[in-house]
Amino acid sequence: MTQQIQPIILCGGAGSRLWPESRGQRAKQFLRLAGASSLLQQSVSRISTPDFAPPLIICGPDHIAPIHDQLQGQDYRLLVEPAARGTAAAIALATAYHLPTTDMATPLPMDSAQGSSPLLLVMPSDHIITDIPAFHRAVTEAAPLAQQGWIVTFGITPHAPETGFGYIAAGEPIDDAGFAVTRFIEKPSQRNAEAMLAAGGYSWNAGIFLFRADRMAQAMTQHCPAIYQAAHAALHSAQHDHDAKQNVILADATSFAAAPSNSIDYAVMEHDRRVAVVPVDMGWSDIGNWSAVHALAGKDAHDNAVTGQAWLHASHGNLVRAGGKRVSLIGIEGLAVVVDGDDILILPLDHSQDVRLAAQQDASGA
Amino acid sequence: MTQQIQPIILCGGAGSRLWPESRGQRAKQFLRLAGASSLLQQSVSRISTPDFAPPLIICGPDHIAPIHDQLQGQDYRLLVEPAARGTAAAIALATAYHLPTTDMATPLPMDSAQGSSPLLLVMPSDHIITDIPAFHRAVTEAAPLAQQGWIVTFGITPHAPETGFGYIAAGEPIDDAGFAVTRFIEKPSQRNAEAMLAAGGYSWNAGIFLFRADRMAQAMTQHCPAIYQAAHAALHSAQHDHDAKQNVILADATSFAAAPSNSIDYAVMEHDRRVAVVPVDMGWSDIGNWSAVHALAGKDAHDNAVTGQAWLHASHGNLVRAGGKRVSLIGIEGLAVVVDGDDILILPLDHSQDVRLAAQQDASGA
Repeated sequence: MTQQIQPIILCGGAGSRLWPESRGQRAKQFLRLAGASSLLQQSVSRISTPDFAPPLIICGPDHIAPIHDQLQGQDYRLLVEPAARGTAAAIALATAYHLPTTDMATPLPMDSAQGSSPLLLVMPSDHIITDIPAFHRAVTEAAPLAQQGWIVTFGITPHAPETGFGYIAAGEPIDDAGFAVTRFIEKPSQRNAEAMLAAGGYSWNAGIFLFRADRMAQAMTQHCPAIYQAAHAALHSAQHDHDAKQNVILADATSFAAAPSNSIDYAVMEHDRRVAVVPVDMGWSDIGNWSAVHALAGKDAHDNAVTGQAWLHASHGNLVRAGGKRVSLIGIEGLAVVVDGDDILILPLDHSQDVRLAAQQDASGA
Repeated sequence: MTQQIQPIILCGGAGSRLWPESRGQRAKQFLRLAGASSLLQQSVSRISTPDFAPPLIICGPDHIAPIHDQLQGQDYRLLVEPAARGTAAAIALATAYHLPTTDMATPLPMDSAQGSSPLLLVMPSDHIITDIPAFHRAVTEAAPLAQQGWIVTFGITPHAPETGFGYIAAGEPIDDAGFAVTRFIEKPSQRNAEAMLAAGGYSWNAGIFLFRADRMAQAMTQHCPAIYQAAHAALHSAQHDHDAKQNVILADATSFAAAPSNSIDYAVMEHDRRVAVVPVDMGWSDIGNWSAVHALAGKDAHDNAVTGQAWLHASHGNLVRAGGKRVSLIGIEGLAVVVDGDDILILPLDHSQDVRLAAQQDASGA
């Protein structure tokens, strides 16, 4: 790559489908769900090469301490959202942070190619990618498109008709590197997911984007000006705080509160006419529930994935996370058993989506 | 009843099928498995009427403290077995304790009817009986038979072809109170159990017996002399200890060690020719595993029996004993979830017999 890329790691999620391990300050991205390091640690490690600048991490005030704790000794900055307003506002903050204060008043033309504006690589903090070289190759391929003014999204090659993800429809090829996006499709029905898989040319929207900062500022000024203005003001207000020692930038709460809450897909991607997709097959998983954790884990001869102390007899296809306790299973098939502190969650792995219910119950204090 | 009956409560069991709650010093009889009091407390309460003398409880050295703890303020004596040698040796100790020291040398003729020898009512400490009046009526009916020299066993009216119990075959009626036993049948096959249930005249052997002390001494001297001699010597040896303040009699270990280990069924009942059965339907259960605990417990509208803190969603027919933790079930059917300290046991209720495997694993320290 000719230009160092600036990673933006979105660290604002909660991950309620991974309750009870994920809750409160201990959000999903801080858990060790696959391998010995947390999802956040893996996200940072993934871009710790000379091709990337130290990451800017967008997070909420509650997560400053756990991030500092998990990233000790590493080079990064934190940009703190006073409140969670969705991915559009988070990306607006990151974009505004990487532009001179005057840029907002003078949006660039869509096809402008100002090499001096940094390339921002936005990615979630709570996904996993097992084929890191494939990821790096995709970013390298996407960089020239982004420099030309395309907003690039990385499309995950689908392996199954998943209904839990949005899909991206690819149109005309661009420079052998990607395709113009013709359409974003929201989480589809099973039937539509199967049809897209059969037709080909569709990929999963993983929420990973590469773009020039000035180009995103222009797109936001056009498609969601209230969000961009609020983020810009929250950064450039006299109220905003900067703790240099901790590498923490605190956006101004009053200004930021004016940002409508929205996702980057709804606010920008679906409306912009110059969005590209670079397909990539890189062992990606959003590791969104206990079933995904089971799928990714090392397993014994009976397809059981066990963390901690457990004794299993005549039991197959289970996920056990013993959390410091000792779990004994006899004659059990296909369950998730997750122990965390005084909480014990038990459910069939194929009901993993329903964990939100227990998390809500917990949060309600009932 | 014309004569006060002496209850003998056998308190030597472990109950490994109720692991993890039952283990070590906290044996099954000390647990609250049905209702607010323990099985031992219910056993003592059951005979706390003027018809019965204060009970003699036969136990091991490890159980002295928990018994004193659970029976505070009640009138009872403890007879401590130095080691567990089966029900025959335990009953031999109780029998010898209730006879003058000279009795052993001069066994009585089988049909002797010496009203002066006490009637002993032997019963386990870890079963439940929900219809106490039916139990009392059966004992009242059985007492004249016992006084005539019959060893009476109480036969539980069978409601299902259980394969986990021994069966008793009733023969000729005796005095409208019971029947002569023609045969004891060991735990049968499913087919034989079904055949006996269909034929009628069979009942379950619950290990509850009523007999004259001198009559049992005679039967043991005839059928299992080594056991009776060892028990007699263990009681009347100079070594045996008596802590009057604690109402504890400690049998002599060296003498008692000579007793072959055997059950009263094998050692006496199957060989004696004057054994009677008094059938009784009294809501009896040996509450032998978690499935029985579920069956006896109060349940919610979805057939879930819950003790402690639990949250259940779309879950039916489960037993949850949360043990101070908080258990969340989603979409779970027919499981036992038993939490005790740091141990969490999960198995289908219809695999309840297999809990021994986990208990063995625990005991082996693996």
